[in-house]
Amino acid sequence: MSGPIVVINPNSNQAVTDGLDRALAPFRLDGGPEIKCVTLAEGPFGVESQVHSDQVVLPLVNLLGQHPDASAFVIACYSDPGIDACRSVSPVPVFGIQESGVLTALSRADRIGIVAISGASEKRHRLYMRRMGISDRIAGERALNITVDESARGSGTFARLQEIGNRLIEDGAEALVLGCAGMALHRAPLEAELGIPVIDPTQAAVTAALGAVLAKRF
Amino acid sequence: MSGPIVVINPNSNQAVTDGLDRALAPFRLDGGPEIKCVTLAEGPFGVESQVHSDQVVLPLVNLLGQHPDASAFVIACYSDPGIDACRSVSPVPVFGIQESGVLTALSRADRIGIVAISGASEKRHRLYMRRMGISDRIAGERALNITVDESARGSGTFARLQEIGNRLIEDGAEALVLGCAGMALHRAPLEAELGIPVIDPTQAAVTAALGAVLAKRF
Amino acid sequence: MSGPIVVINPNSNQAVTDGLDRALAPFRLDGGPEIKCVTLAEGPFGVESQVHSDQVVLPLVNLLGQHPDASAFVIACYSDPGIDACRSVSPVPVFGIQESGVLTALSRADRIGIVAISGASEKRHRLYMRRMGISDRIAGERALNITVDESARGSGTFARLQEIGNRLIEDGAEALVLGCAGMALHRAPLEAELGIPVIDPTQAAVTAALGAVLAKRF
Amino acid sequence: MSGPIVVINPNSNQAVTDGLDRALAPFRLDGGPEIKCVTLAEGPFGVESQVHSDQVVLPLVNLLGQHPDASAFVIACYSDPGIDACRSVSPVPVFGIQESGVLTALSRADRIGIVAISGASEKRHRLYMRRMGISDRIAGERALNITVDESARGSGTFARLQEIGNRLIEDGAEALVLGCAGMALHRAPLEAELGIPVIDPTQAAVTAALGAVLAKRF
Amino acid sequence: MSGPIVVINPNSNQAVTDGLDRALAPFRLDGGPEIKCVTLAEGPFGVESQVHSDQVVLPLVNLLGQHPDASAFVIACYSDPGIDACRSVSPVPVFGIQESGVLTALSRADRIGIVAISGASEKRHRLYMRRMGISDRIAGERALNITVDESARGSGTFARLQEIGNRLIEDGAEALVLGCAGMALHRAPLEAELGIPVIDPTQAAVTAALGAVLAKRF
Amino acid sequence: MSGPIVVINPNSNQAVTDGLDRALAPFRLDGGPEIKCVTLAEGPFGVESQVHSDQVVLPLVNLLGQHPDASAFVIACYSDPGIDACRSVSPVPVFGIQESGVLTALSRADRIGIVAISGASEKRHRLYMRRMGISDRIAGERALNITVDESARGSGTFARLQEIGNRLIEDGAEALVLGCAGMALHRAPLEAELGIPVIDPTQAAVTAALGAVLAKRF
Repeated sequence: MSGPIVVINPNSNQAVTDGLDRALAPFRLDGGPEIKCVTLAEGPFGVESQVHSDQVVLPLVNLLGQHPDASAFVIACYSDPGIDACRSVSPVPVFGIQESGVLTALSRADRIGIVAISGASEKRHRLYMRRMGISDRIAGERALNITVDESARGSGTFARLQEIGNRLIEDGAEALVLGCAGMALHRAPLEAELGIPVIDPTQAAVTAALGAVLAKRF
Repeated sequence: MSGPIVVINPNSNQAVTDGLDRALAPFRLDGGPEIKCVTLAEGPFGVESQVHSDQVVLPLVNLLGQHPDASAFVIACYSDPGIDACRSVSPVPVFGIQESGVLTALSRADRIGIVAISGASEKRHRLYMRRMGISDRIAGERALNITVDESARGSGTFARLQEIGNRLIEDGAEALVLGCAGMALHRAPLEAELGIPVIDPTQAAVTAALGAVLAKRF
Repeated sequence: MSGPIVVINPNSNQAVTDGLDRALAPFRLDGGPEIKCVTLAEGPFGVESQVHSDQVVLPLVNLLGQHPDASAFVIACYSDPGIDACRSVSPVPVFGIQESGVLTALSRADRIGIVAISGASEKRHRLYMRRMGISDRIAGERALNITVDESARGSGTFARLQEIGNRLIEDGAEALVLGCAGMALHRAPLEAELGIPVIDPTQAAVTAALGAVLAKRF
Repeated sequence: MSGPIVVINPNSNQAVTDGLDRALAPFRLDGGPEIKCVTLAEGPFGVESQVHSDQVVLPLVNLLGQHPDASAFVIACYSDPGIDACRSVSPVPVFGIQESGVLTALSRADRIGIVAISGASEKRHRLYMRRMGISDRIAGERALNITVDESARGSGTFARLQEIGNRLIEDGAEALVLGCAGMALHRAPLEAELGIPVIDPTQAAVTAALGAVLAKRF
Repeated sequence: MSGPIVVINPNSNQAVTDGLDRALAPFRLDGGPEIKCVTLAEGPFGVESQVHSDQVVLPLVNLLGQHPDASAFVIACYSDPGIDACRSVSPVPVFGIQESGVLTALSRADRIGIVAISGASEKRHRLYMRRMGISDRIAGERALNITVDESARGSGTFARLQEIGNRLIEDGAEALVLGCAGMALHRAPLEAELGIPVIDPTQAAVTAALGAVLAKRF
Repeated sequence: MSGPIVVINPNSNQAVTDGLDRALAPFRLDGGPEIKCVTLAEGPFGVESQVHSDQVVLPLVNLLGQHPDASAFVIACYSDPGIDACRSVSPVPVFGIQESGVLTALSRADRIGIVAISGASEKRHRLYMRRMGISDRIAGERALNITVDESARGSGTFARLQEIGNRLIEDGAEALVLGCAGMALHRAPLEAELGIPVIDPTQAAVTAALGAVLAKRF
């Protein structure tokens, strides 16, 4: 049968990997591919700068080589670090969560908004989305300005998500992408609260991987 | 648990619905949502013109109302007929196979090509893709110029797919979308032959629906 | 000589048709083509939703067939319902008032603004204008949020038009399009008040039709 | 009543003005505005270079001042020389034939082609159309490579128009604009021959002027 | 060796030419090309309108002819008047300061802002930048609304520059272009104050000219 | 005075660095900044793949730190490896040769062509140019399909450059960028042969650096 979908957390924070693992539980179905979450040991504790993003590329490329049975890879950091290099060496599809999160949101609404963790990443995301050629569909990006660590835990995070979500709706957003690998547990409550689709990018990328794997079975 | 993903064939050709049903078999997993394929009785035998495309809109809207338990709908005709109207009335996500096919291809390659059944639909697709705001990523669209009926059966179809696929590769395509609901059985052989990803749009839309349904379980 | 320009009101409100008829009086010149305004009996009382817009397509296509002597058709509803289907079957030019209104405004100013009746149509218009490939010239669209019925009569309508017009000017608009078939009587006063060109879309479409008909005489 | 629509031939070749005058005859209707064709005495014999195009700007601005009763102006040279300057000083609308020709074609087809007189003007037109923000709708521009003088007379011109028109159709054009003020007499035969709309840009601009003038009467 | 880079001030205000001359002093290096600043005697005292911009075109073309030894020309007015005509006749490169200022800023930041002297030129600049095809990179343009004369002297100018610069930063600008030939002396202090790159467009154009001249020496 | 402009060859082939050094000789002027060419010892012998491009990022970032007196940096590899990371850490401007080469060509012509060494880099360049938001100005990119090593020496290289250059001219290119750090010696002969501007990207980036440094002196 199909090999596992390997979801790589490019930072070395195992708690983030564990969170991913929980958020992906519903995607593990009997008869479907295994979904394996792994931590990049060489990664920084959080990918929070351009240099962080670049320093994980070679370790990611090496990690791919250690999973020869993988049927697909997901790079679970919203900067999609190493996406070009990984694709250039991998015999199986590689999905970046920013790309998949954005494309998935585009199938749910016309104009979309991005909720970033930090304003520092806004420019990186903007360049990436312009490169994707889909900028006309972006209503805006706004930052929570909290740490990655807080994003998955802090009790104030949800109130901040609501506030930023509402501002993106005023900007014209009709669906939102959570611009971080670690906010899946806020997805459903935020969607319920705001009344528009909210996309968790890791779930989106795993869905794309699942589709690629299952399509091969026909 | 989640209600069924309802895949609607907007033409009244039951053989097309049956083909869809077979192509979606791998997406039916234990514990996952049911995937139900239905035929729009009021549809024309094939959706081959703009008027055909428009005449199925109200029947589609009505059909949605007959599936109150659906967790998502897929409109399985490459013109995405009625997508705006269906979305405006449906409480659950509605996916069009053109939109999903194109977005899925965009997660597999930078520039993509579309294999149309007939040159007559090229303009309709072009307008739709421009409306999607992703035209910069389209390498081209080329038509097989065969009938929908032939597309699923004719022995000459595969040779024609190879020829058109190769021309799209010359145009710059790095992945292909099959621009019709009824060519799923050619997907894997064509991908093997051409060496680039080939996307069946119904599988792509069902994948998107599956992702939306499963995400709600976390 | 040339047959009539047939202007179709796709809703069944005869008062709207009568208003169109009056607004087009100046375009009826001796020696020029007749301009005939007709009501689509099967239309809803107002076209105010996506479903309304879709439900008039087939009746419109049928209506075209009842005017074999027409030299051109104008679909006088700002959603341009049925424009693709009508064009696909008509032997003579078919003009949509949204398309003509926007193109006419583009010949009067660089960036234009749209005055919509209702916020509910903003997304429909945006998708249509993106499909037209002219989004770079749109300064904004803002809604009066009144009913179609009020738009042609209500005494408060003009004050609201001024307010919305001024906000669009702040957005950068250098000309305005009235985003509704029934506001022609406000055109001249609003233009005088705001000091920038204001386009009535039905007049714009009839102008385009007139040009197409007269050009054939040389 | 409304003052005349003043159509200015920016070159000093009276034969060109006379040709314009004839082509506009059908647009002179009882009760409609007068359409007056004038020659720019200071213009070069033909506007065939960038310097020619720039040298007529001030004379054009001056000429406008000599027609205080005009209800609209049309600059009848496909380079739209002086359009910005004329608009900046004129109290009434000023139409350029390139702009009007292109916008009119966009109301008749999705992708349009331009038939230029000379390859030397291709770049000038391309920059102008990019400035218009409508480049996504241009299928191509191809040049006859004949002189302006030949264009209105030469017996070989029509054969050349057919050839270039057919090549533009292969490029994807679904309507054509004649990229010169002096080819109106070829419009109808070429349209009949090619089976797609062919737009004479001066007729298009006069139509726009007529629409602006008539709209003011309601 | 290489002939001079001839920098033309298209207005007849010698004080502006003298200011350019001083601002370019650092670009005069031993062994490098001479940099000669000349005044267009026929120019208006300031180029402040579209007509001003057009009236200098032919005199500029003539002036080029008087410098047959030039290795490059720079047109030092932010409207880039006559750029197309000058390029069409000059055997050596011609640089416009708007074009060079904008392209230089694009090498220093992703999104850039333009500080205009007067709101009246905003539209002219916008059309020019759209024609350049780089509008996606423009965060905004805002005007000081002072005269050209004040811009180089007035004590209040710097405070106004700070205010407008900060508003452009709020708009998303990550580098600024001074939209006028005469503000070079404010460049360094404004850059120091705002903390983002500030580009003087004449220095940018002279840099481009210098590069073109020096490249020929290898 | 100003510190040196440090030009970094990201591959470890000293012969390439020596070639850069020679090509930059004309840019070393008395009184101007020093131009220092350095080799990235940790680089691969040639940067010919995505992984090569990514593996030099951290070494480049480190190298910047070893030149605290630099007034500007130039990354002299046409992939602009590490440009984002280097900019994020450097207190002085960092120029990439692809970006500077393209922007410089855009100041010399409307539509430009890229001469790549290898077809393998075409996609990388395309994504980068789309990210730059200037794709509308690209006439095409064509590859010599020779090695980096051959590009600087092989006697057949010039004939191949002519051939590819002429094909790009047919594609519509009005200026060319040499898509490699090591082809400067072909620039002048190719420009003479083809009759359109040919840009060496390293010279272009050093020009930009020179301009940034000299501007600070006023």
